[in-house]
Amino acid sequence: MKIYGDMRSGNCYKIKLLCSLLGIQHEWLHVDILAGGTQTDKFLAKNPNGKIPLLELDDGRYLSESNAILNYLAAGSLLLPQDRYKLAQAQQWQFFEQYSHEPYIAVARFIAKYLGLPENRREEYEQKQTGGHKALAVMEQQLSVSPYLVGDSLSVSDISLYGYTHVAHEGGFDLSQYPAIIAWLERIKRHPNYISMV
Amino acid sequence: MKIYGDMRSGNCYKIKLLCSLLGIQHEWLHVDILAGGTQTDKFLAKNPNGKIPLLELDDGRYLSESNAILNYLAAGSLLLPQDRYKLAQAQQWQFFEQYSHEPYIAVARFIAKYLGLPENRREEYEQKQTGGHKALAVMEQQLSVSPYLVGDSLSVSDISLYGYTHVAHEGGFDLSQYPAIIAWLERIKRHPNYISMV
Ligand SMILES: N[C@@H](CCC(=O)N[C@@H](CS)C(=O)NCC(=O)O)C(=O)O
Ligand SMILES: N[C@@H](CCC(=O)N[C@@H](CS)C(=O)NCC(=O)O)C(=O)O
Repeated sequence: MKIYGDMRSGNCYKIKLLCSLLGIQHEWLHVDILAGGTQTDKFLAKNPNGKIPLLELDDGRYLSESNAILNYLAAGSLLLPQDRYKLAQAQQWQFFEQYSHEPYIAVARFIAKYLGLPENRREEYEQKQTGGHKALAVMEQQLSVSPYLVGDSLSVSDISLYGYTHVAHEGGFDLSQYPAIIAWLERIKRHPNYISMV
Repeated sequence: MKIYGDMRSGNCYKIKLLCSLLGIQHEWLHVDILAGGTQTDKFLAKNPNGKIPLLELDDGRYLSESNAILNYLAAGSLLLPQDRYKLAQAQQWQFFEQYSHEPYIAVARFIAKYLGLPENRREEYEQKQTGGHKALAVMEQQLSVSPYLVGDSLSVSDISLYGYTHVAHEGGFDLSQYPAIIAWLERIKRHPNYISMV
């Protein structure tokens, strides 16, 4: 099994973290996003949407989208809820992540950390703060009533949201206003075989 | 079972279409998005993220995110692939929809159809065209080699992407450049119990 990714990307780190937690052996192939590694003809032949992470199975089949890869790899493990409603809740949080969280928090982080907050993207950066805080408030509300996003144990949804939440400060988000999120980040870090982003 | 939605929204229509195809009885509760119906205290108590569609089960539990609702309702039916890799592919297309398709095509449609393309959003509207066409090209490539997004039969991923693709022209997208997409739209319309958006 091969995984194409760039460890600076939270979407790629999600997969690395899950593989470590579950002890899934794989070959990691570095693709340099900032150098345009996802837009070469060779890469586009593997994923026409031109994005990492990308999973390549031993028989040559591909799978893209970080959360779809997580759910595929977690099948049969404790990280993927069995109960129909809990499984749906895990997916709810993953779609929330892609629609209401990542486009604000990951993009603000990218603009600040990798582009150095250039003047012509400052307005966009400011707008991302509002959406990002809205998403963090939604998470805070849930994590004030349950230790993980879906009930009492770690699931794929926590890994999906951990990816960019734990580096949200790099996008200008002050997490000290969100005590339940901070406690949840610490809880995840204490899991056996946890690995950090870099 | 109650569904909170607004039939002008493709995200809500997805659920209506799936319920019709599978014969799932439900009560439809109209929430007027344009009048701020998702931002009242009463609605935010049901979904802190303030968005429709929203499912309310008979025991009072809630589920948000259109694609999570689709997958929950389709469990056990032919619309949800059983095979592990096919299931992952269906999710891949659903996450693609939320990240690379909806934010361009649905938003361009909203700006054009519901806001009347005001001058101060024209630049944003133009930018959405590029991303939208990129997403349509990715779909076209897949639909040139398989009749549905995941293999030979209709799945939840087709319903997810049908929602806004079949009204993409309302966002300024000319689908005549995408013959495989047009054939796929027609294929979906011919399914028994298909219902249209309005
Ligand atoms: N929805 C995708 C998003 C992946 C994504 O945006 N990947 C970025 C890196 S974080 C990428 O490959 N960007 C390069 C590009 O778009 O050319 C997922 O969850 O996997
Ligand atoms: N990711 C969500 C998106 C839902 C969404 O954006 N819903 C819109 C209507 S299409 C909405 O409720 N907007 C009202 C608001 O944001 O206040 C899903 O797939 O359900």
